[in-house]
Amino acid sequence: MPSKVNRQWRLIKNPVGTFKESDFRLTEAPIPAPHDGQFLVRNVCTSLDPTFRLWASGKETYFPPMPLGEVFWGLWVGKIEESRNPNFPKGAYAAGLWGLQEYAVSDGKDGAVLIPSGIEPQTWYGVFGHIGMTAYFGLFDIGKPKAGETVVVSGAAGAVGSLAGQMAKIRGCRVVGIAGSQEKCSWIRSELGFDAAINYKTENVSAALKEHCPKGIDVYFDNVGGNVLDAALAHINLRARIALCGMISQYNSDTWSGPSNLMELVYKRAKIEGFLVLDYTERAGEAIGAIAEWLQQGKIKYRVDVVNGFENAITAINKLYDGSNRGKLLVKVSDA
Amino acid sequence: MPSKVNRQWRLIKNPVGTFKESDFRLTEAPIPAPHDGQFLVRNVCTSLDPTFRLWASGKETYFPPMPLGEVFWGLWVGKIEESRNPNFPKGAYAAGLWGLQEYAVSDGKDGAVLIPSGIEPQTWYGVFGHIGMTAYFGLFDIGKPKAGETVVVSGAAGAVGSLAGQMAKIRGCRVVGIAGSQEKCSWIRSELGFDAAINYKTENVSAALKEHCPKGIDVYFDNVGGNVLDAALAHINLRARIALCGMISQYNSDTWSGPSNLMELVYKRAKIEGFLVLDYTERAGEAIGAIAEWLQQGKIKYRVDVVNGFENAITAINKLYDGSNRGKLLVKVSDA
Repeated sequence: MPSKVNRQWRLIKNPVGTFKESDFRLTEAPIPAPHDGQFLVRNVCTSLDPTFRLWASGKETYFPPMPLGEVFWGLWVGKIEESRNPNFPKGAYAAGLWGLQEYAVSDGKDGAVLIPSGIEPQTWYGVFGHIGMTAYFGLFDIGKPKAGETVVVSGAAGAVGSLAGQMAKIRGCRVVGIAGSQEKCSWIRSELGFDAAINYKTENVSAALKEHCPKGIDVYFDNVGGNVLDAALAHINLRARIALCGMISQYNSDTWSGPSNLMELVYKRAKIEGFLVLDYTERAGEAIGAIAEWLQQGKIKYRVDVVNGFENAITAINKLYDGSNRGKLLVKVSDA
Repeated sequence: MPSKVNRQWRLIKNPVGTFKESDFRLTEAPIPAPHDGQFLVRNVCTSLDPTFRLWASGKETYFPPMPLGEVFWGLWVGKIEESRNPNFPKGAYAAGLWGLQEYAVSDGKDGAVLIPSGIEPQTWYGVFGHIGMTAYFGLFDIGKPKAGETVVVSGAAGAVGSLAGQMAKIRGCRVVGIAGSQEKCSWIRSELGFDAAINYKTENVSAALKEHCPKGIDVYFDNVGGNVLDAALAHINLRARIALCGMISQYNSDTWSGPSNLMELVYKRAKIEGFLVLDYTERAGEAIGAIAEWLQQGKIKYRVDVVNGFENAITAINKLYDGSNRGKLLVKVSDA
């Protein structure tokens, strides 16, 4: 049953190390009412993302530091409960950066996206939305893999990594994934069709990359940074492309460590390039169209890890950093 | 007077820390004789380059590790003493990767370059050759500066850095150089026309970059790596290009340290790209033509730091790493 108030998670302290529930406060506000041109949306399914830790850090990232006391930022899919905006009709689903709260009012100009009918809220975040677009544009626009090349993906059982790896398979590449458990390695190999998987917790990543990438690495889609980036750099080919999506291994640290062998970029005339899905909103249709087709053809699979209840959102976030999530981490906030 | 034997510097030990003369042995061999299609060249002017320390490391770089006992690799300009190759006539000057020795025989297919007449051997390495080409292609092909952008150069009083900075001025950029002494800073500002200079030994580089790059950094031409790269990363603009030429601050270390804030590449959708002048030999004419014109117009200046005597080559190398050289470091081996 939908809440009768608007509960909101507010950041009250910049975390030290991992998130603690005491870094947040759960507050209540009245459910807002839409003016002309606006609509009221009820949070159905909230996305929990690794970038939360960056937003909470109190430091300048790709956004300015989040002010303490503010409703924590966050993307969610909601059902439109009331509408005074013809582009966002009542009963439809929309997604937006509306913050960790149960209701929001939007004018549709805040990056809100109307979800095509037939796509479930959980599917939106599992395979479309910012996740699918990050994988799609990071891989194809930054990594630029060619058929026959070797693509390595870290965080390979994660939401973005698992899609990036499957897309590289579709492109005709040899794909090697790096993940943090036997279960994850087995999933990406057996279910998703990766050519090889490396468990970074139990294997020597550099030795395993050497074994599984006999022709070297042409594209490295990096979600983790740290030692795994170092290991990958040691095996890159001439003119390799490293698409830097994130560095989750570092997010909870006060002092980040960089790759010690960056000179490999010179030796191999290679590059590391960062990207953000924010830059691709105008090309969303291209990614969504391609992903929808692959999904229908059974060429890509995904899984979601759903936590129930808005009040449990904060406790669940750390699953992203300790690796205990299985697929895209979501919070079911209310019934669709 | 030219030597009557062929003296050769051979690497006999991979250095630990800085080069020591005991890492080398000076040997003698007969002066070789050219066969049909070959020519004999006498070393006039040898280039000493930071990359020597990488070659000597015993590790795979852009070349395989140099075998111990071999004549140390090195580029020099020589006078053609005898020729059985019509493309390399007696009396002309040629440059090649002919190793730290006083004579060599070449068939002209080993990357040998005939020096256009009128260019002195010291001028060749001061402003043309691999130095000028590294600056030219690194800046324009990798850095891609546009007029009005801000370009930062480290190792800015060095052979490559001083040219890269002047080329960026010619392109119409604001240019800030980072160097290791007041004399160097004064030279690049007063003589070369850099807009600002930062002494990394006495100033806080990050604070100084903030002051001298009020619009942020669009292109960073990096010769040094280490802390200076970290400082530059903190001030890059959206879609900044870091042209990674070298990391001389790290060459004498066993354990290299990487930039701690590589996530700036994500925040700013920026890239670090390595390059090597070796890849541009086919386009040498383009760089040499442009540099010759700028030189004639007085738009670029250079200086050379000449050490006399082949036997002093090894002792002189460390001037590159302690920063005591003033301009392109050369060894005068024999009279032109």
